[in-house]
Amino acid sequence: MSTDPPVNERATRNPDSGRTAVAVIGLGLMGGALARAFLRAGHPTTVWNRTAAKADGLVAQGAEPADSAGAAIASSPLVVICVSDNDAVRGLLEPLSGVAAGRVVVNLTSGTSAQARETAEWARREGAAYLDGAIMAAPEAIGTGDATIAYSGPRPAFDRHEPALRVLGAATHLGADPGLSSLHEAAVMGLMWNILNGFLHGAALLGSAGVDAAAFTRIAVEGIGTVTGWLPGLARQVDEGTYPAPDSTIDTHLAAMDHLIHESEAHGVSAELPRFIKALADRAVADGHGGDGYAAMVERFRASSGART
Amino acid sequence: MSTDPPVNERATRNPDSGRTAVAVIGLGLMGGALARAFLRAGHPTTVWNRTAAKADGLVAQGAEPADSAGAAIASSPLVVICVSDNDAVRGLLEPLSGVAAGRVVVNLTSGTSAQARETAEWARREGAAYLDGAIMAAPEAIGTGDATIAYSGPRPAFDRHEPALRVLGAATHLGADPGLSSLHEAAVMGLMWNILNGFLHGAALLGSAGVDAAAFTRIAVEGIGTVTGWLPGLARQVDEGTYPAPDSTIDTHLAAMDHLIHESEAHGVSAELPRFIKALADRAVADGHGGDGYAAMVERFRASSGART
Repeated sequence: MSTDPPVNERATRNPDSGRTAVAVIGLGLMGGALARAFLRAGHPTTVWNRTAAKADGLVAQGAEPADSAGAAIASSPLVVICVSDNDAVRGLLEPLSGVAAGRVVVNLTSGTSAQARETAEWARREGAAYLDGAIMAAPEAIGTGDATIAYSGPRPAFDRHEPALRVLGAATHLGADPGLSSLHEAAVMGLMWNILNGFLHGAALLGSAGVDAAAFTRIAVEGIGTVTGWLPGLARQVDEGTYPAPDSTIDTHLAAMDHLIHESEAHGVSAELPRFIKALADRAVADGHGGDGYAAMVERFRASSGART
Repeated sequence: MSTDPPVNERATRNPDSGRTAVAVIGLGLMGGALARAFLRAGHPTTVWNRTAAKADGLVAQGAEPADSAGAAIASSPLVVICVSDNDAVRGLLEPLSGVAAGRVVVNLTSGTSAQARETAEWARREGAAYLDGAIMAAPEAIGTGDATIAYSGPRPAFDRHEPALRVLGAATHLGADPGLSSLHEAAVMGLMWNILNGFLHGAALLGSAGVDAAAFTRIAVEGIGTVTGWLPGLARQVDEGTYPAPDSTIDTHLAAMDHLIHESEAHGVSAELPRFIKALADRAVADGHGGDGYAAMVERFRASSGART
């Protein structure tokens, strides 16, 4: 990147680059990163934020400020929204009428699949195409190969604007149901919190024995690599609904779970997380999955609405 | 591997290879894999199992059967034990007296750090050196570069037998406290269960929307890669005891955790796991960490013995 000219120079240099004009609504940490990526790639970029001053830096880099969200939407065939939450999205969009027709509105605000479908319904009424998107990256990764954004909604709208969307990061299309990207985001975030909790609990445990977290990280990363290698096999079992256990069954995991509980208690760190994990496994055994591989736990997670038994 | 001669041929070919004689006690799935790796590498290998018939296949491959655990220990300067649990280890070793002097006894049986220290104490009384080891691999990976075994106990004993131990997989030495390998194993297993639970809960959630687990795996693996990249930074914060949040704070995670709970409930899958994760985060916020990054959760895990509040 060090050989790139400054952002504003390039944006000025390519005012009529033939690149799709885009509007970015919401200029927080993430929205600002999205707008900068578009500017850097030479897209004519209109920006709007509720607090107008947040646009100043981007305008200095070549962005066009809009007077209102409606004016931003009217300005460009491709509109990207990234605000604090979907209540804010509805607050922006519901009062508008007639400005979005023919636009592709891409909502990258984190939310639920139900919220995505509600906004898709607003877009349908307004004659706009709606894509929902889940950003699987931190703001600093936007515009690099390290960012992935997963979109859902009508395929033709995605295909039309894929070149522009790829400016933000790798772009994948999950399906026509606009709720799919939120659902994937929730699932991946859940996975991430689980990883972070497992790592931080392990760091607390080893820290109690004087092992620093940096030293644990090396062995943790190896462990993550090992378990990542198991996932395709586990996924196959989940999709087939059978859980043969060539080596370790859920029954054999129980003893190791007890070790983690005992180590935690013996070292004065919280045993709550391993106790929760063990309780899930105990119930999978009670459900008859003791002789199955760990993938059978998916049946536990599928079961009803999560009432504790 | 396809150009290797059959195992028994090589073992026969190198009866006096100069390689350390080893004894393997316990010939279950894992113990059998350990013995085969030693045989394959040309180590004179004595084997013993409570159920003697389990040795037959290894004897056919060139292993020497021992009449008793004591005879196995007496046979070799390096003794590897891998049985069902540490009660079985104690049942084997406690009755023995005088056979282990001068031996290096390596216990690869899964257990707790307290159990490792107890067995180390038996070895001290008997004049043997004791290494405890944690196998971070499935049996089929033993003898390949994909297996890692982490050892703890006196460094000289590890150094003396490192060439033989490397036959089993990558060998690392964690420190002189024999409890360290069990503690690391518990921490890594905890991390693994968390990953598996997060993945399987996500697979259940997406499965409810008709997305198969194989398709989720691709996006899950990307998410795992992203979060793995965060760990060195998180570890630094944990070791420094400060948790600055350049982008997302625990407060901002709470809303996304609610999304996962709502998605789970809306799709009829168990919300128990995300509710547990949210409850942990809620309490970190109550502890004053709402404005910190996620690494501050380590304080939650450090806190006391895990009483639920």
